[in-house]
Amino acid sequence: MTEKLVLHEYSSSGNCYKVRLTAAHVGVAIERREYDILKGETRTPEFLANINANGRIPVLQVADRFIPESNAACFYIADGSPLVPADRFDRADMLRWMFFEQYNHEPNIATIRFWLAFVGLEALSGHQREQIAIKRKAGNEALKLMDEHLADREWLVGDAISLADICLFAYTHVADEGGFDLDLYPGVIGWLERIMLHPKHVEMNA
Amino acid sequence: MTEKLVLHEYSSSGNCYKVRLTAAHVGVAIERREYDILKGETRTPEFLANINANGRIPVLQVADRFIPESNAACFYIADGSPLVPADRFDRADMLRWMFFEQYNHEPNIATIRFWLAFVGLEALSGHQREQIAIKRKAGNEALKLMDEHLADREWLVGDAISLADICLFAYTHVADEGGFDLDLYPGVIGWLERIMLHPKHVEMNA
Repeated sequence: MTEKLVLHEYSSSGNCYKVRLTAAHVGVAIERREYDILKGETRTPEFLANINANGRIPVLQVADRFIPESNAACFYIADGSPLVPADRFDRADMLRWMFFEQYNHEPNIATIRFWLAFVGLEALSGHQREQIAIKRKAGNEALKLMDEHLADREWLVGDAISLADICLFAYTHVADEGGFDLDLYPGVIGWLERIMLHPKHVEMNA
Repeated sequence: MTEKLVLHEYSSSGNCYKVRLTAAHVGVAIERREYDILKGETRTPEFLANINANGRIPVLQVADRFIPESNAACFYIADGSPLVPADRFDRADMLRWMFFEQYNHEPNIATIRFWLAFVGLEALSGHQREQIAIKRKAGNEALKLMDEHLADREWLVGDAISLADICLFAYTHVADEGGFDLDLYPGVIGWLERIMLHPKHVEMNA
């Protein structure tokens, strides 16, 4: 990639961290621009008109074009690297876990973490508070599914680390901040440790 | 692809239809196996153990292996075809719309359709009824975002039909069954018509 990459982000967001972690694995430099989502900085008319009409981060800027959706941004950076399997089945299987992440994992595990650790219980609406138990159950189901899959596997897909691992690592490794007990999932714990021991790993707060 | 493909599905599901529509565009034969999700046929011990531990359809079976997640199944079928853009940016941009579909579109537009047209309002829980207004608003925001994007474009990505169009067509074209008024979105209407006029198009009930 010869085009300049800019990550429009909120650095405590797992969705933004996964883009930085992908870039670290691939060895690509990214310029970072921080927005405070708690102050609505991704909902301003300028942001909606110029960066992302959906009002969300991360957005990966490639020269003068923009890629919203964290997992699509990761795919852009990793495309052609070993993080995207060369095998056709494994490539689709990688995407299977990335879609699972956005449908079954992130809306539960990331949302509870955001509500409890960033917004604060007392600031939640009544409807949000009612949803906590539902999201707690669904989040644990997602972790259990990962745990059973990882019981006899080193990585989610094939026999090497892929984008699926990086994308699911982001919110799984901070699930305890939302009150999830990862000790219930020893397969997940071992997998988190393998990812953290990778020589190209970077921390969320790096 | 020389391996036999079997689609484990509930044929009225847009997530299942998008896999059949992709296969029709690519010209690949798929064997179909129907499960009645209203009778819990994807939650049986056999289904969870052998087809998908997540208890959901569609699942694409490739010989003796399985790909859950509708958009990953579509990607497997379309990989290497013109439905997946050759350009790196466009390929990531296609995935951007597919992740948008699963995060912002399907949980709102497909869920309301399922609740109102399949389960029935009187059979919904109180919590589900409360969510209708929230999902109605979010679904209309997703349609508006698509409508504005399509105001000066023929297709969602680049200048040709891609998997992004097929995946978002599935639930958009039946959004009226959930009470969404598509006449509010003329850009979306024109785009739906372009997809339906494609020579390889197949109907949902085909």
